[in-house]
Amino acid sequence: MSTFVVVGGDAAGMSAASKAKRDNPDVDVVVFEKGEWVSYGACGLPYYIKGEIQSLDDLVSVTPEEFRQERDIDLRTGHEVVDIDPANRVVTARSADGEVTQAYDHLLVATGAEAVLPPIVGLEREGVYTLGSMSEGKDLREYVGRARSERELQQPDRGPACQFLETCHGPVGIVGGGYIGVEMAEALAANGFEVHLFQRGDRILKQFSEETSESILDHLGDQNVEVYLGAAVEELAGGDRVEAVVTDDLRVPVEMVLVGTGVRPRTALAADAGIEVGETGAIATDAYRETNVPDVYAAGDCAEAEHVVTGEPAYVPLALTANRHGRAIGQTVAGTPTKGGGIAGTAAVKAFEMEAARTGVLDDALAREVGFDPMTATIEAKSRAGYYPGGGTVQVTLTVDRPTGRVLGGSLASEFGEGAVHRSHALVGAVTEGITVEELSNYDLAYAPPFNTTWDPVLTAAKVVEGKR
Amino acid sequence: MSTFVVVGGDAAGMSAASKAKRDNPDVDVVVFEKGEWVSYGACGLPYYIKGEIQSLDDLVSVTPEEFRQERDIDLRTGHEVVDIDPANRVVTARSADGEVTQAYDHLLVATGAEAVLPPIVGLEREGVYTLGSMSEGKDLREYVGRARSERELQQPDRGPACQFLETCHGPVGIVGGGYIGVEMAEALAANGFEVHLFQRGDRILKQFSEETSESILDHLGDQNVEVYLGAAVEELAGGDRVEAVVTDDLRVPVEMVLVGTGVRPRTALAADAGIEVGETGAIATDAYRETNVPDVYAAGDCAEAEHVVTGEPAYVPLALTANRHGRAIGQTVAGTPTKGGGIAGTAAVKAFEMEAARTGVLDDALAREVGFDPMTATIEAKSRAGYYPGGGTVQVTLTVDRPTGRVLGGSLASEFGEGAVHRSHALVGAVTEGITVEELSNYDLAYAPPFNTTWDPVLTAAKVVEGKR
Repeated sequence: MSTFVVVGGDAAGMSAASKAKRDNPDVDVVVFEKGEWVSYGACGLPYYIKGEIQSLDDLVSVTPEEFRQERDIDLRTGHEVVDIDPANRVVTARSADGEVTQAYDHLLVATGAEAVLPPIVGLEREGVYTLGSMSEGKDLREYVGRARSERELQQPDRGPACQFLETCHGPVGIVGGGYIGVEMAEALAANGFEVHLFQRGDRILKQFSEETSESILDHLGDQNVEVYLGAAVEELAGGDRVEAVVTDDLRVPVEMVLVGTGVRPRTALAADAGIEVGETGAIATDAYRETNVPDVYAAGDCAEAEHVVTGEPAYVPLALTANRHGRAIGQTVAGTPTKGGGIAGTAAVKAFEMEAARTGVLDDALAREVGFDPMTATIEAKSRAGYYPGGGTVQVTLTVDRPTGRVLGGSLASEFGEGAVHRSHALVGAVTEGITVEELSNYDLAYAPPFNTTWDPVLTAAKVVEGKR
Repeated sequence: MSTFVVVGGDAAGMSAASKAKRDNPDVDVVVFEKGEWVSYGACGLPYYIKGEIQSLDDLVSVTPEEFRQERDIDLRTGHEVVDIDPANRVVTARSADGEVTQAYDHLLVATGAEAVLPPIVGLEREGVYTLGSMSEGKDLREYVGRARSERELQQPDRGPACQFLETCHGPVGIVGGGYIGVEMAEALAANGFEVHLFQRGDRILKQFSEETSESILDHLGDQNVEVYLGAAVEELAGGDRVEAVVTDDLRVPVEMVLVGTGVRPRTALAADAGIEVGETGAIATDAYRETNVPDVYAAGDCAEAEHVVTGEPAYVPLALTANRHGRAIGQTVAGTPTKGGGIAGTAAVKAFEMEAARTGVLDDALAREVGFDPMTATIEAKSRAGYYPGGGTVQVTLTVDRPTGRVLGGSLASEFGEGAVHRSHALVGAVTEGITVEELSNYDLAYAPPFNTTWDPVLTAAKVVEGKR
């Protein structure tokens, strides 16, 4: 009989808890979660705010009650773990009822990530939102609902985003051009807001290839989103409420601002307990996701993991990794030591009527650091047979190591529904297995006219890169 | 200065001709094609007959004139090669103008495949069609057009397929439940015909998993296609014109019959010249697609190639392989010896509002023959996040080698647009690289709510199979 204690009840924590209990019912599983929600799909929040999902409850895959009743997990919501004592194998948690201590045999730190707030004046003003939690999602949706009702009673002043809409609201500002910024631009525009997006760097979606970024940027323009590149926001100006986004040379009036400038791992609890934090700033783990402290694991948005291309630790806080590594830890704790596999940095995003995915290493500097000599090429190809009705264009960027031809990374973009994201599945295998671009070009991928050209765009990209190498 | 002679001007032949000339303009390239069409997309014929493609010319990617003028290829249509003399490196071709001989340094045999006609009485009757060539496609489309015009002048007798259609024609019969049979069921039903499909075996699409076959079969039923399994057609009865499809216990009145019962490689020309034909019945080649006769290559629907899973020669006559191997031969002939890669037996099909793909080895007997101990499992999973609007179900079958966990093959089905086919890209890499199902389950595949669940259905299938192993 052993006790497995989990700190944090989202993807990594609940995957580990569920798997440990399922594989070995003799393990006592205790989960401390400081909030009230567990196992929620934060990735769905933009679609909740957009209005495509009616209730926050729809984002919850398993309720606290189900974890307790059906999965026999001692889930304690409203409990924040404030101390880990590895020497005595005890954690201390604080709740409204005071402090409790809990002994453990195995411990998982799954404390997640928190929003990085840039040094901007006025972040505290009313009307400034972030989107890191379910309750923040709720607040933002309430704002959207209120703004819509109020505006529907007035004659709106129509801005550029509104020309095709019956009702128009806003203008609103988004600070940050990453996943959240782009997804929220869609969500807010769909609700009739005039959207202004401020990106400090020189392109949006910087994890993707430059060409993918450019394609999505063009599309945002087509959708009447005003994007400002190289725009470092200095102030969210106003009185009690935010009234304008201010950069060194711009002052854009807004009624609301969403700040989505990335996240950083929550590591303080672990670091205080002597658990090692790696160079990425996230908790360091081995292939079993065990930390430097025996029997203490870390996974999800607070932890780093080895990258399948570089072999080095990387920090890529995304949902699948949290689930996968949580599950592997659960299996290990249940008695079967299990590696969860490395990460390829794969990610997907929908932006209005486009989709994009990326995997592996696309950054030349990073590739050179680990000894590769990267080269990159981008192609555009039809998404279906040229004679087949409908269809669009798939843009594929491949980065390879010039001397060996090894595929290091890829980035794809297409119209929504034209398959950029699912096609990236081919590239994940390529970067994970370390195959060459010539080998990839010889893959016997599925073909039929409604789905691609005889050479799928992925193969065309591989041929082109191989030819230039 | 050398001469490269190509016999047959479709995918393999024209890919080789084009690549050889592009890579080395000093090579003289002569192509003999017995018909008038070259480089045509026969895969598009069902969509031409359906009416989604307006002209046969749309199926032609490069015209004869373009090959001659822009690519500097000596393309001789209307020339049938009747003899290959390897000892003297000369071929003889026959045209309306008589016979010509042509010397070669390198030769490619790309004679393609021909329809297998089963031993059925009455195949010669009017109204019996096959779909192996452009001209047959033209004939069938003309029939469809005529039938529609005639019927539109009458009150149709409405059959089961017609209940939702304004106009209804037919009934018509399809003999064969492979790709052509299924695609043509869609094409004919879309034109208002009542479709009866006769399959000799106990399931349709027998290259796919049983579960995929079953899903598509159910869907054909939903689309009012009458499918007869275990129905060996004995006679296409009638007078001058076909009037009924007859099996040992059925007689179904029809106005037209399409026979789509597979193809066999055209090998007589090669065999007569001493070129070796393999056990599959197709021309045997090495990794460079060279036959047993030096400097004589074979590729496309007349040739076999090594299977990436079994390592044994296999015959899978599909478009991508023809293109890929033709291109590799062209590159070899131009001076850079190039292997075109093996085949995984990957294929895709659209059937009304469903799509399916398969790759690798799904047949237990074949797997055992080469020393594997196969086991198979099938899962069904949501195609998008459960809370995301729309979406459907992806069914994934995986066959693995039980002792090692190696992924041998996969089969997927989903609603059209829900990604079964593009998701198969992940499995092609898995079977080609020989990875285990546990490794596959740890792949860092792209995830976002509009595209999949956190664990893509492919990963869920891998987890389930690994759990059962």
